[in-house]
Amino acid sequence: MDHQKVKTLRQKLYTIVFEAETVEGRTFDIILLFLIALSVLVVSLESVVSLRKMYLPLFQAAEWTFTILFTIEYLLRIYSSPRPLRYIFSFFGIVDLMSIIPTYLSLFILGSQYLLVIRVLRLLRAARIFKLTSFVNEGHMLSRALRASLNKIVVFIGVVLMMVVVIGSMMYVIEGAASGFTSIPTGIYWAIVTLTTVGYGDIAPATGLGQVLASCVMIMGYGIIAVPTGIVTVELSNIERQSLNTRVCPNCHKEGHAPEANFCSNCGFALPSNHGT
Amino acid sequence: MDHQKVKTLRQKLYTIVFEAETVEGRTFDIILLFLIALSVLVVSLESVVSLRKMYLPLFQAAEWTFTILFTIEYLLRIYSSPRPLRYIFSFFGIVDLMSIIPTYLSLFILGSQYLLVIRVLRLLRAARIFKLTSFVNEGHMLSRALRASLNKIVVFIGVVLMMVVVIGSMMYVIEGAASGFTSIPTGIYWAIVTLTTVGYGDIAPATGLGQVLASCVMIMGYGIIAVPTGIVTVELSNIERQSLNTRVCPNCHKEGHAPEANFCSNCGFALPSNHGT
Amino acid sequence: MDHQKVKTLRQKLYTIVFEAETVEGRTFDIILLFLIALSVLVVSLESVVSLRKMYLPLFQAAEWTFTILFTIEYLLRIYSSPRPLRYIFSFFGIVDLMSIIPTYLSLFILGSQYLLVIRVLRLLRAARIFKLTSFVNEGHMLSRALRASLNKIVVFIGVVLMMVVVIGSMMYVIEGAASGFTSIPTGIYWAIVTLTTVGYGDIAPATGLGQVLASCVMIMGYGIIAVPTGIVTVELSNIERQSLNTRVCPNCHKEGHAPEANFCSNCGFALPSNHGT
Amino acid sequence: MDHQKVKTLRQKLYTIVFEAETVEGRTFDIILLFLIALSVLVVSLESVVSLRKMYLPLFQAAEWTFTILFTIEYLLRIYSSPRPLRYIFSFFGIVDLMSIIPTYLSLFILGSQYLLVIRVLRLLRAARIFKLTSFVNEGHMLSRALRASLNKIVVFIGVVLMMVVVIGSMMYVIEGAASGFTSIPTGIYWAIVTLTTVGYGDIAPATGLGQVLASCVMIMGYGIIAVPTGIVTVELSNIERQSLNTRVCPNCHKEGHAPEANFCSNCGFALPSNHGT
Repeated sequence: MDHQKVKTLRQKLYTIVFEAETVEGRTFDIILLFLIALSVLVVSLESVVSLRKMYLPLFQAAEWTFTILFTIEYLLRIYSSPRPLRYIFSFFGIVDLMSIIPTYLSLFILGSQYLLVIRVLRLLRAARIFKLTSFVNEGHMLSRALRASLNKIVVFIGVVLMMVVVIGSMMYVIEGAASGFTSIPTGIYWAIVTLTTVGYGDIAPATGLGQVLASCVMIMGYGIIAVPTGIVTVELSNIERQSLNTRVCPNCHKEGHAPEANFCSNCGFALPSNHGT
Repeated sequence: MDHQKVKTLRQKLYTIVFEAETVEGRTFDIILLFLIALSVLVVSLESVVSLRKMYLPLFQAAEWTFTILFTIEYLLRIYSSPRPLRYIFSFFGIVDLMSIIPTYLSLFILGSQYLLVIRVLRLLRAARIFKLTSFVNEGHMLSRALRASLNKIVVFIGVVLMMVVVIGSMMYVIEGAASGFTSIPTGIYWAIVTLTTVGYGDIAPATGLGQVLASCVMIMGYGIIAVPTGIVTVELSNIERQSLNTRVCPNCHKEGHAPEANFCSNCGFALPSNHGT
Repeated sequence: MDHQKVKTLRQKLYTIVFEAETVEGRTFDIILLFLIALSVLVVSLESVVSLRKMYLPLFQAAEWTFTILFTIEYLLRIYSSPRPLRYIFSFFGIVDLMSIIPTYLSLFILGSQYLLVIRVLRLLRAARIFKLTSFVNEGHMLSRALRASLNKIVVFIGVVLMMVVVIGSMMYVIEGAASGFTSIPTGIYWAIVTLTTVGYGDIAPATGLGQVLASCVMIMGYGIIAVPTGIVTVELSNIERQSLNTRVCPNCHKEGHAPEANFCSNCGFALPSNHGT
Repeated sequence: MDHQKVKTLRQKLYTIVFEAETVEGRTFDIILLFLIALSVLVVSLESVVSLRKMYLPLFQAAEWTFTILFTIEYLLRIYSSPRPLRYIFSFFGIVDLMSIIPTYLSLFILGSQYLLVIRVLRLLRAARIFKLTSFVNEGHMLSRALRASLNKIVVFIGVVLMMVVVIGSMMYVIEGAASGFTSIPTGIYWAIVTLTTVGYGDIAPATGLGQVLASCVMIMGYGIIAVPTGIVTVELSNIERQSLNTRVCPNCHKEGHAPEANFCSNCGFALPSNHGT
């Protein structure tokens, strides 16, 4: 009976801590989300020198309060999970642990508490709470498009990296340390800053030849920035088109037939006409 | 009879003040538009120190003239509107009120007159005046595309904000106050400046590790800037396609006839004219 | 007879000066093009102080040589053109005139010779010389796409200009002259620099509130830069698709029928099947 | 017999040095790739002054080790290649030679060893080693899209170059040397930096008129950056569509069947398998 009761308690905790179907579960998640956002804000503000000087005790108190609360939550999750190890080594399990460790570490190592901003990753739970299925779908779609274009983007970044090494070392040879190109790595950094059109201006060519080369790089950057945009657009457009083709073959259940198709492209079964649509 | 006359006056005022079908209405709107543009210009120029010193009385006179004229216009609108409350709480009603209040407030609070630039929003009326139906359609189309892609863009901005917090605090830990990364909020500001490829250069990494991380952020920014462009392009393309696909052949039910088509391209049946649309 | 001879000379001059079909005409055009490019280069280099000090007489000699040659060419064009007035007031006629006037003006007004770079516009003749029909087609296509998206882009730029005025004056109120926001026009200039992701950094927000607002502007700029790209992409794609539809109705000669069309959408005539293609 | 043996040795060397089918060939290529990456890293780090001071003998030893190894490799390639001249004048042959020459040159000419970064181009061999056929395909597709849009991009860059010359010289006349516009070439450099939205800020307009003109240039840059993106997107989309459209039904001649389709979607006829492709 006692064992039964414990099991019931664990199950009840599970529905509160992990799920968001019940009122308690949802309340727990909303409070947790609020605490996460607040703790990220506190860590950020603590790093502002003028604020830290004035409110240091307050910040430290808040920091430890959050850490203790999150530690309790972490232990509860391990306790209530039916498969604790799976939770611990899941993405959220690792994020949860990493969001409490730095405060304890800060007792020994100075400055480690700034790693607490990893907590912001926990905000990803937000998507689950509000049952924002539409957002989840959009997110899936975006990540599918990015994954579909991954190969092309890897090739593209490989080419860009090689260009950047060659351009960076040419600029180092041409401009030299006088204009801030103190080494080839610095030249590569400048080439990345320029090709991506960020253009800080902390390092900029000063000689005529350097400016001519830089101009060529910028105009090349024009064409180059078009490539990932084109890739992502085409993939997004493909995925969107596929998601519109909702016709399913009644014989083999293959999805995605074109509106004008008369027969299933997989099994040759005559598709029902979609005049009704 | 007197009541009748007043009503007629109100109706006449309504056609002048709110509509642009009659000659008087159009003249009123064009004069108003000109005054709005002029008043925005005056407020802008007044903020230039050298000009203010020389022409202060002139600016103040112009300012009060515009405010009194716009106040009269506002009262006329309330008076002539058949549903005054609806006008007062409409978008343009609020903009109209907010474009006159600051001058009166400037008698009590210094500097508030600079909020007068809100008047620029009134220029949106311009679209109505010139009956620029084509522009209005284009505007509708753009805003439809933006609205359709809103969900995707919200997910996208959410992910970007989380990345920016994590990157910003990493740079704060790596670079420290020496390079201008004085706090985590400053680091986040830098991350936004870099990811959006704006790149002011007021804060820039100086250490090797910081520059390596910054390079990764910039190359990531490449892929990231492609996402909203892809989203908007696909939505615009969808809307454009849909706007072509509204005519159906009554004989064979083929959809998607061009607006200028007279016959069905599939069965040759004469299409009904779409003059009604 | 003498009159006849003069006419023949004019006609011969016409084929040399205006056309590029004959060997002489082509030679004339290639020499002219080379002279134009050289003269633009000379004007550019003359503006470099160190070079001007060393080679001033050389630059002046080159300048007058080019001007006299281009004046002779201009007079020849007027003389040989069958409709001189039409040439004088054509685009190239005005450019040709404006490319020689500044040198003569420089005798009276100092510095006006720098307007000579207008000569670069004459390089547009290059397209005609090399009979680069493919390039001309591409140019037509690009300009068609830009013209088709003009309405949308006008609406878009109107909205951007209004945003920029509002944001610029808010930043002026928030930041003030200390950070370089010395006036509302300067604030508007900053807003344009930021929204277009140029980001010089000559003016940058220094206060916390200003940086928060700037961050919002930059993230908005993300979405905003996607809009013209989307517009141009969709229009380019439309034009490309239309140019692929080369089927012409044999009855009414309407072009651009879809590959699956059986009947002309204009006159209902049965189109020949395109199985052969 | 001896000749036979030599030939066998050459053939064996060929399979090791040029191919990556056998275990030895692959091992050779992976070691080579690792050495190339390492040598690029060494050249880069050598250029950092603080590191060079500390580890100069180490860098020089590494440099000569790499050069001797690559020289041996180069000679082996010439020796084992069935057509040595073809290899020597091939792209990789020239890159291989240029990646060893600078070290020998550095005995005579100071600084030439920095050209060693050309070695990075040798990393392109990587694609062959790992048999990354998918990446190779993606690369082909990207380069096909870029080639197809080359004509349009040449026209586009031609127009941009002309704009940049005109804008640059106008800014030189307006701003003058006080704001850093010391010559027309500098003005052109500034115009390129601005139009491409890089925006270093090393040169920025200071006068009112200059800022107005700069604002126009930036807003134009908005529309302009959309053009290459649009071009590349449309071409990528065309190529993607074409790569889907190569299967034709032998019964009804309908084109555009998906690679995984077994039956014609129009008439239900069994499509021939495309294993052969």
